[in-house]
Amino acid sequence: MNRPRVPVAVLGATGAVGQTFVRLLRRHPFFELREVAASQRSAGRPYREAVHWLEGELPDAIGDLEVRPCTPEAVRSRVVFSALDASVAGEVEASFARAGATVLSNARAYRMDDDVPLVIPEVNASHLALVRRQRRVRSWEGAIVTNANCATTVLALSLAPLHEAAGVRTAFVATLQAASGAGYPGVPSLDLLGNVVPYIAGEEEKIEVEASKILGRLEDFAVAPAAIRMSVHANRVPVEHGHTVCVTVELNRAVEPEEASELWRRWRGHPLCHGLPSAPDPPLALCDDPDRPQPRRDVWAGHGMRVLVGRVRPDPVAHLRFAALGHNTVRGAAGGSVLNAEVMGRMGLLPDVKEGAW
Amino acid sequence: MNRPRVPVAVLGATGAVGQTFVRLLRRHPFFELREVAASQRSAGRPYREAVHWLEGELPDAIGDLEVRPCTPEAVRSRVVFSALDASVAGEVEASFARAGATVLSNARAYRMDDDVPLVIPEVNASHLALVRRQRRVRSWEGAIVTNANCATTVLALSLAPLHEAAGVRTAFVATLQAASGAGYPGVPSLDLLGNVVPYIAGEEEKIEVEASKILGRLEDFAVAPAAIRMSVHANRVPVEHGHTVCVTVELNRAVEPEEASELWRRWRGHPLCHGLPSAPDPPLALCDDPDRPQPRRDVWAGHGMRVLVGRVRPDPVAHLRFAALGHNTVRGAAGGSVLNAEVMGRMGLLPDVKEGAW
Amino acid sequence: MNRPRVPVAVLGATGAVGQTFVRLLRRHPFFELREVAASQRSAGRPYREAVHWLEGELPDAIGDLEVRPCTPEAVRSRVVFSALDASVAGEVEASFARAGATVLSNARAYRMDDDVPLVIPEVNASHLALVRRQRRVRSWEGAIVTNANCATTVLALSLAPLHEAAGVRTAFVATLQAASGAGYPGVPSLDLLGNVVPYIAGEEEKIEVEASKILGRLEDFAVAPAAIRMSVHANRVPVEHGHTVCVTVELNRAVEPEEASELWRRWRGHPLCHGLPSAPDPPLALCDDPDRPQPRRDVWAGHGMRVLVGRVRPDPVAHLRFAALGHNTVRGAAGGSVLNAEVMGRMGLLPDVKEGAW
Amino acid sequence: MNRPRVPVAVLGATGAVGQTFVRLLRRHPFFELREVAASQRSAGRPYREAVHWLEGELPDAIGDLEVRPCTPEAVRSRVVFSALDASVAGEVEASFARAGATVLSNARAYRMDDDVPLVIPEVNASHLALVRRQRRVRSWEGAIVTNANCATTVLALSLAPLHEAAGVRTAFVATLQAASGAGYPGVPSLDLLGNVVPYIAGEEEKIEVEASKILGRLEDFAVAPAAIRMSVHANRVPVEHGHTVCVTVELNRAVEPEEASELWRRWRGHPLCHGLPSAPDPPLALCDDPDRPQPRRDVWAGHGMRVLVGRVRPDPVAHLRFAALGHNTVRGAAGGSVLNAEVMGRMGLLPDVKEGAW
Repeated sequence: MNRPRVPVAVLGATGAVGQTFVRLLRRHPFFELREVAASQRSAGRPYREAVHWLEGELPDAIGDLEVRPCTPEAVRSRVVFSALDASVAGEVEASFARAGATVLSNARAYRMDDDVPLVIPEVNASHLALVRRQRRVRSWEGAIVTNANCATTVLALSLAPLHEAAGVRTAFVATLQAASGAGYPGVPSLDLLGNVVPYIAGEEEKIEVEASKILGRLEDFAVAPAAIRMSVHANRVPVEHGHTVCVTVELNRAVEPEEASELWRRWRGHPLCHGLPSAPDPPLALCDDPDRPQPRRDVWAGHGMRVLVGRVRPDPVAHLRFAALGHNTVRGAAGGSVLNAEVMGRMGLLPDVKEGAW
Repeated sequence: MNRPRVPVAVLGATGAVGQTFVRLLRRHPFFELREVAASQRSAGRPYREAVHWLEGELPDAIGDLEVRPCTPEAVRSRVVFSALDASVAGEVEASFARAGATVLSNARAYRMDDDVPLVIPEVNASHLALVRRQRRVRSWEGAIVTNANCATTVLALSLAPLHEAAGVRTAFVATLQAASGAGYPGVPSLDLLGNVVPYIAGEEEKIEVEASKILGRLEDFAVAPAAIRMSVHANRVPVEHGHTVCVTVELNRAVEPEEASELWRRWRGHPLCHGLPSAPDPPLALCDDPDRPQPRRDVWAGHGMRVLVGRVRPDPVAHLRFAALGHNTVRGAAGGSVLNAEVMGRMGLLPDVKEGAW
Repeated sequence: MNRPRVPVAVLGATGAVGQTFVRLLRRHPFFELREVAASQRSAGRPYREAVHWLEGELPDAIGDLEVRPCTPEAVRSRVVFSALDASVAGEVEASFARAGATVLSNARAYRMDDDVPLVIPEVNASHLALVRRQRRVRSWEGAIVTNANCATTVLALSLAPLHEAAGVRTAFVATLQAASGAGYPGVPSLDLLGNVVPYIAGEEEKIEVEASKILGRLEDFAVAPAAIRMSVHANRVPVEHGHTVCVTVELNRAVEPEEASELWRRWRGHPLCHGLPSAPDPPLALCDDPDRPQPRRDVWAGHGMRVLVGRVRPDPVAHLRFAALGHNTVRGAAGGSVLNAEVMGRMGLLPDVKEGAW
Repeated sequence: MNRPRVPVAVLGATGAVGQTFVRLLRRHPFFELREVAASQRSAGRPYREAVHWLEGELPDAIGDLEVRPCTPEAVRSRVVFSALDASVAGEVEASFARAGATVLSNARAYRMDDDVPLVIPEVNASHLALVRRQRRVRSWEGAIVTNANCATTVLALSLAPLHEAAGVRTAFVATLQAASGAGYPGVPSLDLLGNVVPYIAGEEEKIEVEASKILGRLEDFAVAPAAIRMSVHANRVPVEHGHTVCVTVELNRAVEPEEASELWRRWRGHPLCHGLPSAPDPPLALCDDPDRPQPRRDVWAGHGMRVLVGRVRPDPVAHLRFAALGHNTVRGAAGGSVLNAEVMGRMGLLPDVKEGAW
């Protein structure tokens, strides 16, 4: 491929999600990872020394990059992936957007803002059009686009085909979430070895509101959230990667397991995603074995971008029960953001990328 | 205490639940563990050699017992605790009951039979009266009394105060069940290390039917099951002991978290249990910390007999959400059976024990 | 027992070892836990709010104690248990000793000082006499007495009977250490779930020098360290409590496994310990099963104070091989310090306790 | 590549190692997996139904293969990979060799036979010449070639450069072995969750004798084992894949950590392996971080075929200490056998493959 690649930066590059961004971007056909930025403590040091690298090998070229401070003055790339902590993301991301950068944010700061797209592109790529309103309203040259919370992503992707076909009315959800969802150092091993923690601060609320926005409809440059009522239980379990969600769902009409399975099997997601480098094909897969999906065994399906659905069965109370699994730091975080950027490029929403070029 | 103890036997004494029976009975004030029985393969050997002892130290006196075959001819005790596998429990337990023994069964074989009590005594000690009908109908001198499946026990105990006060209409339940629930050798470590298995064969169905029977009402020597609709997801997690259940519950009338908490705090269970050696006081406890109960930290509350409730919060869809935890091989298996026997003794339903003597 | 109890304080009471001190002291027959002290951040708050309580239930009376700062002005007890971090222990413990307190220290700051006893009392209670030299040399009214590093404790206890009988010349040691040895929050779960970390900073050096001092001989108020050469590998493993050590040992004369086993079986440790509340009887036990000791199953032997030895077998290179296990935060930390204090009381080395009174 | 591939079979194809063979062979450039064989119980069924597939996805084409019985009549391939259990391997493998097949065996049955090569080809490819003596002595048309026990493989590979340069005299070894080393179902999760088992039946003896044979010298068609004395402790730890070995080593001459590191860095193994599809390049790698190698993070280095060495440091007793890690079912089992076969092909020792053709 001879096309020049778009230079990009990662903000918060030393954390767990930041590292996942680095792994996904280091050999990307469209993007070239040119800059890594992190807190003042790390700034000025080579990335290799500033980071406690968690998985696989740190590529040499990136280890040599000098860590920059998270300011638009220090970071020149106009496409910026943000793995910043919620506590600082709000201000920093806005400063970048104001300075003209397109920020693909993994933080929750702007997710629920009216003019900020919250996107899982296979589900709601069309919401990216909100960017135009955002630029107008905020007088930003750049923009902020967000991806969903990790558990929300698994849930919303698994619900999407059902919602499109029959309308989800109510979802009863219990999550079994992996350690990596809490970042690094995250959960102390004394809290998680041989244990379950039936609580993740703020998580249940995020899942409830975010899933409805993602499955909502874009009307007149605003998202009308889907009218889905949710009852969520969030649990942390001693698993490295992979959030499992157990879902009981009530739809606008009765759907049998066979029909639902067929919906999941056939679903290809928004056509704008087809063929993009980070788009899994298919985005969803159905497990045949009755005891799957399982995080340790299935989390890397589709390079960590595919969501697996299993245990589809009728429900004595509502309509359907199933379990779904997705990789929380790939599909549910960094990978989701990268796919958002790829779709934006294809839509002509990235600086210097022509619509349809990708 | 000078009262002579009732001699008892454990059937299936070498398995995981059988060993728990042995631990609970070795220093019991009312019962004296005289006989251990197991499969033909083990019969004739000293218990110490036949068993792969899993926890703590095997008491010498019991290690010396010769393992007997599981037949009423070989086992003389008239009170018999059965940890037999479902595959053989049906026939063997009946042969003992026919021969005059009172069988406290942990197997599922007879749980749903009309004339067999399925009992968590704090919840439904009154159902033990079914024994009289059973003896009549089956022309047995002895009897079979069952305790519930381990996950059902945690669920039913946590629901009981709500059900008594406001009537449970619907329960959406996800379980996170410990390895010991599958017995020994049970789940291979390659299946469970760092993993979740979203499936336990037959478990969801058991929970649905058993909980309704336990929470049902005894009318004219038959149990009218509670009209509770259940949607259950059963998961196996890498935890040694302790089943966690996440519950969303809809009641016959709205109950606020404060009222529910008060119900759990005040609940003392059926008075017939009060003061018995295996009866936890209180049977339920409420956790204050937002991230409790946790299996590794809380499973031994009340010597493994207390069920803990936590995370009580309102629900956007139904009325209440909470998490509950109980020890699956103690409260949910052997300990439940022992408590059943203690209550039966107090009610005059055990051979050679006078009503009210305990 | 009508004897008045000695008031004591715990410094660093909010950490993992500090909490273990609290658990061991809350119902101690000789000591009364009157004061808990911690960093400035916690000072002034009720203990219950300052601590993230890790195991079992926090006793009410102690939860109500106001946390004090770690200064001799704020803490009045003249017997002080220190669970302070190495980084601050040096200065703080000295200030207490100077002010007249007897400090039972779990930190490494003073362990290797010539005039400071490093004591596992069953092994070297006689070393406590160093306290007199220490007081003279340092002009302290109080004193500092230290216990060994957690892995050292398991190793030195298991070696003691061999060393007494045949002289240990060389020990090749590999440790498999539990998460709780690193305190709380300690090791992130992402580092330890399903993993081994073959490195614990500074641990191998500590084991080498401390074991030799403990097994050394007190001569003229100085300890001549045992001439034991050590080669140590320290590993962290995903276990909650319990350090396992694998030891190949060369002695001054050949010792067969049978003789060694007999030595371990018969060993009762220094008579000064016999009958003290925290002294396990026996201090060592030998496992019969070929696959024991195992941390999860055996760590609570003797209330966490007994060290277990197993897998005693001949060695093709040196003389013997074996595995030993002990509870790192009880035997190897807080419990060791409490036993040190009990022995000191019996020896007349504690303020206000008459020699032989205990 | 237009060269026709050599048809091969896997015996014991349903077990854990058998499945690893299937994964490694399904897209092999030199071999074509044509037949899978297993016990009578599985014979006649499609592989997909006979196997409990443990990792990743079972390739369709192989799932469709009919499982054959493990007899030379039923299996036509003349190159046969055996993952048979030790209990049956002896007889079955001999029957295949007698019938003309070259058996690449992962079982221990023949490893220590004088005329059977025990090979890690980077270390001792030359030993493969023993095959000619074996054929003569046993009057077999085929042959049996074995690879080492999984822990031995990691140890012998890490020792090889030291042994070649300075002669290993003594090795003190402690292993921390993964669950998959015990096959499937293997270790029950109740034995391994949060636990260490300091015993693996027969393992220590195997390591001692096998490593010496592998590092030995081929003289006059017999292997003179290396005169290395070994003291081994084998432990099972709750890790999925990856055996860690902690090694203290005494050499014929003093070797400093710097020199040793250089030896490991430069080592390329026997030239006959260079460029073969399963040969990792380099076969060994040195970890820079002080806390590596770690099984969960490093086990897949070189597609599971590279052994990592770390923590190289001087030793107070012998000369050197280090830790090494390798993938037990890939490098230490199936992958080692496949590489053996590739080297044999290159040496002209496989039926229908010309010397030097690969």
